[in-house]
Amino acid sequence: MFELAESDPSLSDSEAKRLIPQLRTRLLRAQYKFLERKERALLILIGGIDGAGKGDTINLLNDWMDARHIHTMAFTRPTEQDRVYPRQYRFWRALPAKGDIGIVFGSGYAPLMEEALKKRPNPDLFEDMILAARRYEADLVANGVQVIKLWFHLSKKAQQARMQELLQNPSTAWKVAPEDRDVPKRFKHLRQAAQRIIESTDSAHAPWIIIPAADENVRMVRTGQAVLEALQRRTVRVPPLHDPAVLPTLKRQRNPLTELDYSAQLSKDDYQTALLHWQNRLARLVRSKGFVQKHALMIVFEGSDAAGKGGAIRRITQAIDARQYDIMPVAAPKPFELDRPYLWRFWRRVPRLGQISIFDRSWYGRVLVERVEKLIPRSVWHRAYAEINGFEHQLAHSGVIVVKFWLAITPAEQLKRFKERESHPYKQYKLTPEDWRNRRKWKAYETAAADMLVHTDTSHAGWHLISANDKRHARIEVLKQLVKRIEQAIDDDD
Amino acid sequence: MFELAESDPSLSDSEAKRLIPQLRTRLLRAQYKFLERKERALLILIGGIDGAGKGDTINLLNDWMDARHIHTMAFTRPTEQDRVYPRQYRFWRALPAKGDIGIVFGSGYAPLMEEALKKRPNPDLFEDMILAARRYEADLVANGVQVIKLWFHLSKKAQQARMQELLQNPSTAWKVAPEDRDVPKRFKHLRQAAQRIIESTDSAHAPWIIIPAADENVRMVRTGQAVLEALQRRTVRVPPLHDPAVLPTLKRQRNPLTELDYSAQLSKDDYQTALLHWQNRLARLVRSKGFVQKHALMIVFEGSDAAGKGGAIRRITQAIDARQYDIMPVAAPKPFELDRPYLWRFWRRVPRLGQISIFDRSWYGRVLVERVEKLIPRSVWHRAYAEINGFEHQLAHSGVIVVKFWLAITPAEQLKRFKERESHPYKQYKLTPEDWRNRRKWKAYETAAADMLVHTDTSHAGWHLISANDKRHARIEVLKQLVKRIEQAIDDDD
Repeated sequence: MFELAESDPSLSDSEAKRLIPQLRTRLLRAQYKFLERKERALLILIGGIDGAGKGDTINLLNDWMDARHIHTMAFTRPTEQDRVYPRQYRFWRALPAKGDIGIVFGSGYAPLMEEALKKRPNPDLFEDMILAARRYEADLVANGVQVIKLWFHLSKKAQQARMQELLQNPSTAWKVAPEDRDVPKRFKHLRQAAQRIIESTDSAHAPWIIIPAADENVRMVRTGQAVLEALQRRTVRVPPLHDPAVLPTLKRQRNPLTELDYSAQLSKDDYQTALLHWQNRLARLVRSKGFVQKHALMIVFEGSDAAGKGGAIRRITQAIDARQYDIMPVAAPKPFELDRPYLWRFWRRVPRLGQISIFDRSWYGRVLVERVEKLIPRSVWHRAYAEINGFEHQLAHSGVIVVKFWLAITPAEQLKRFKERESHPYKQYKLTPEDWRNRRKWKAYETAAADMLVHTDTSHAGWHLISANDKRHARIEVLKQLVKRIEQAIDDDD
Repeated sequence: MFELAESDPSLSDSEAKRLIPQLRTRLLRAQYKFLERKERALLILIGGIDGAGKGDTINLLNDWMDARHIHTMAFTRPTEQDRVYPRQYRFWRALPAKGDIGIVFGSGYAPLMEEALKKRPNPDLFEDMILAARRYEADLVANGVQVIKLWFHLSKKAQQARMQELLQNPSTAWKVAPEDRDVPKRFKHLRQAAQRIIESTDSAHAPWIIIPAADENVRMVRTGQAVLEALQRRTVRVPPLHDPAVLPTLKRQRNPLTELDYSAQLSKDDYQTALLHWQNRLARLVRSKGFVQKHALMIVFEGSDAAGKGGAIRRITQAIDARQYDIMPVAAPKPFELDRPYLWRFWRRVPRLGQISIFDRSWYGRVLVERVEKLIPRSVWHRAYAEINGFEHQLAHSGVIVVKFWLAITPAEQLKRFKERESHPYKQYKLTPEDWRNRRKWKAYETAAADMLVHTDTSHAGWHLISANDKRHARIEVLKQLVKRIEQAIDDDD
């Protein structure tokens, strides 16, 4: 894999002088076409051996192209502040919009490399990290972010010479960090780790490209060509997922909604007693050290129109200090949100440590309204089950407790509530013509909901089906399940 | 001012029971109208004596209204992470969108109170903080954010009783921070400071409302009424600014653009030598400790179309590591940006410590294109001079070096460049019908530019007028002025 790069190929200055102006013109032209099409973003992940001139080359790319549409990001080890959010949070937030180019130093491959270089790498952890990287890249590509990965490489001899050169010149010595000076000694070890990582994460949709880096001319031209090819690619497709562990088969499953007891109810007195009890427990829990120091909470409310989401949310927030929560009403994505992968706008809303985000509708719109209204092709919402499961898994893995409620009512109950709203002085606002339209598609929404409830009912973020024809019963059930899930998460820490 | 509040008025439970349901209905209705109109946002700043039940009352507001459109924020003392941005950054970022309500604990009044409570407050600092608060609120109101400020107050006796009560109940004792237990002793002192602050910052457009807080019923009802009145106000207007120190008189000034020597030029050889020299100095400067540990840099490029902004930017970025800068091309604001005060989107782009943001066009669009194209009334762009000067002053005060370039070319030179672009294989992209339209309005744009150059040429962020008919001359001038400004800022630290 590294044979060519370690032969340290070179290019004469005269040849470079001939090639580079052509390359620059083509790069710039390709960039403007890419920007004009606005079909996808390009993400360039940078890796490689130290002293291989990665930084210089990227500066050059910025110089050759229109740097206003290139965003270069360097992620260092997470700081204390970064750690109040899940690990993937900062990478997601930084994704470029369609038409733009993002260049990333210190991507998720930096910790992977660190692990691989350990005296005794943890094989399970390593394997998990590889899988996570593959999944992440596939999800990006499937969502309009093209990915290429450049690995800058050179021979051991050339690396040593380059380090010496950098160190001898006072104006470049700063580029060599103290820990990098050891690298020549570790060359073989590093090479082995890189080979393993590259082999496990190379793919047609997110390829690794080895850049021979000993000679500046070769390095520049090869990097430019790699970016040019990426910009010029007509389409980038992810192979369909086949892994049944992540992607469900969509044959008709039993519908959990039909198994629910819609007659469940609670008397006014029992309700008052229960409300006080569960709100008190919730209030204590969310202020406890066990919660605020290790967890955050995302609560999802889905269900038909008029299922009582708002009322249930209020019974939760009554128990919580207003400074600790935020409620996100989720409607159709805005243009700047459509320019990014679907889950981007929800990553932005992930709560920090100790905080609570409540979603009134959520990312499940992808497999509900967007599916039913045919806003996206089947392949996209089908794939979304796996993407969503992955998203929630990452959250749960970082200590974010994800609690999802489906408030289930019958069509007759919905009709009754619509009529009530029509005649209510200020609840009229809540009823729109769209609600009536959706109601006519009850069957299609129910099918979509049933599929969703089956395919995204994971061990780390299961669905709570709430029988909601009786509001009192529903509200208490919500509080109770929520309290139990938080208690469980805190217990699991010990 | 505190007479009524310190008489600790009370309201019987039966009376409260009569008033509150009406109040809630009216609040909710007013909120939905406010949301529907989407004319402005409402920002509620919370202050008051400790133990006055501020937190409880705000939780109640969230419960009474539709909490999905209320965002409660608590700002504590700035952390290390907060300090890498200017002080006002986090307040600006958190502003609610039009139609929404933001409730803020720990606003800018918290540090003001701290200063006022010192044994020997610094009178100049105090005065500056008062002025800053007044300016900030006036700017918000002028930009569609209504502001009300609630001060929760009670008598010394009632406060002492309340503290005792909270401390005795284990489920509320947490609400009393150790430092708060001293407060009864400091009551007189605190009262004096509060009075001084409230008197100096009360205004018709951003009023202080004193909430008697000893009795829970009175506190709830009075708070609800205050918010209701705010939501129901038809219009909120800031009195026009009269202070000539902040707002310029718009009588015709001398036009600095006519005084420029447009014939300045540089030979190719001199250019190459100078380029190397200034880029080297710039490269060293932006990596120096004096810069990265104490400063950030915002570079603004304005000028007619084809004035050479892009080329000048490239000569700067060639000297800087791509990880250290970002370029922001500024076009018309997007809908979600129009929902906030004009400067909001630029506050979001303020660089963190050690970083560099380069603006290809900028917030000056307010007094250039928006004025010339009559997108906003005269009073708005007139006021913008003061707002912009204030914005840049706050940046400069926090160590952000703001360097502004106007690249000036003659109409003849522009025509020549347009023609060149028309025939160039990939520069065609740069020329749009809008460029020709703007060219026909040359005179109007020149007048706007001249006014801007005069009225925003401040000591902390002066304009650099660059004669740019000769690109080589312009690029070297830009680099030179930039280097000198950074050097100056670092020198001033000592």
